[in-house]
Amino acid sequence: MNTLDFTKNTRLQTQLNFIIEIDKVKNIYRKSLLFDKSRFANDAEHSWTIAIMAILLREYANFQVDIEKVVLMLLIHDIVEIDAGDTFLYAADRKDAHIKEEKAAERIFGILEQDQKQKYISLWKEFEEKQTKEAKFAVVFDRLEPLLQNYITEGFTWKKNGVTYNMVYEVNKHIAEGSKEIWDFISAMLDSAVEKGYLPRK
Amino acid sequence: MNTLDFTKNTRLQTQLNFIIEIDKVKNIYRKSLLFDKSRFANDAEHSWTIAIMAILLREYANFQVDIEKVVLMLLIHDIVEIDAGDTFLYAADRKDAHIKEEKAAERIFGILEQDQKQKYISLWKEFEEKQTKEAKFAVVFDRLEPLLQNYITEGFTWKKNGVTYNMVYEVNKHIAEGSKEIWDFISAMLDSAVEKGYLPRK
Repeated sequence: MNTLDFTKNTRLQTQLNFIIEIDKVKNIYRKSLLFDKSRFANDAEHSWTIAIMAILLREYANFQVDIEKVVLMLLIHDIVEIDAGDTFLYAADRKDAHIKEEKAAERIFGILEQDQKQKYISLWKEFEEKQTKEAKFAVVFDRLEPLLQNYITEGFTWKKNGVTYNMVYEVNKHIAEGSKEIWDFISAMLDSAVEKGYLPRK
Repeated sequence: MNTLDFTKNTRLQTQLNFIIEIDKVKNIYRKSLLFDKSRFANDAEHSWTIAIMAILLREYANFQVDIEKVVLMLLIHDIVEIDAGDTFLYAADRKDAHIKEEKAAERIFGILEQDQKQKYISLWKEFEEKQTKEAKFAVVFDRLEPLLQNYITEGFTWKKNGVTYNMVYEVNKHIAEGSKEIWDFISAMLDSAVEKGYLPRK
């Protein structure tokens, strides 16, 4: 099926077929509520917020970053969940999820022509591996948004899933590698969450 | 009310209060359906898609552009609709809407400290005025997405609102100023839409 066959520009046709495919991420719902608590957020909305966060808060990076690369990573990092679904950060099956996500990246970015396919897959992998400066800074925002959502919604997802302070601390402490100042903020927020009863100590 | 008062970093607190405020755009629904026709798209989802489009399709710009600026413009361009609502592109009251949008920009970007407030308001105005290279290229995607949504959904919004080929042509022809190649694609798509009965000629 190719509904865009009216054009002779096959490269553009392919690129727009990719855009149409990734629209499905708008129906992949996350475990966290919107800040107004009205409903769960979807992956496209999450990606939009964290891309803006990265630009707005770039002054807190521990080092110089290529912000365009950071933003593109954040915009596309959850596209693989179209096939693999959303896996809870504190779930035991994160490794199985990763195998599914690799296949998904191959299929979805594989819609693009070779040059863009390679570029986007390697960007996605760079984000997942969290070794480069850009990936370390990008992941700060992928974590900051759900932590903030949980704080604002009085621990909704934490309470529902039996998440403790120690779990949150262990899984998120690497945020300090991308931004010491944002990790300090998060540490204070987690202490406040424990104090207010949103998050049990253990 | 300030729920983030656990931190001493008042600048970061202000920035995150802005992030929480703009989350409301996720409840501003547009006139166009998602590509799978399941529901209307909201402004955050639309902004996510067109930011990716701009990066993916940058090779079609008529001139060199600062892509980081283009992406940031697209990510924030609809935030004013939190106060002003979504105005249909073909509506007669676009001018009234613009006055409301200016006030909205002042209030919402005004949550930020002076340096970022000024930067974001001027970026939003630059997009609205469509005079710079970056604004001309950014607007291509603000228009391309709903046109493509209408084509894929067999003219859903066009039919519902009595929109004709001539109206679409007049309101969108300036796309050629940002990208000749994408305007050629859209022209072919509109011809095909008329032929298939999605869009009446007049």
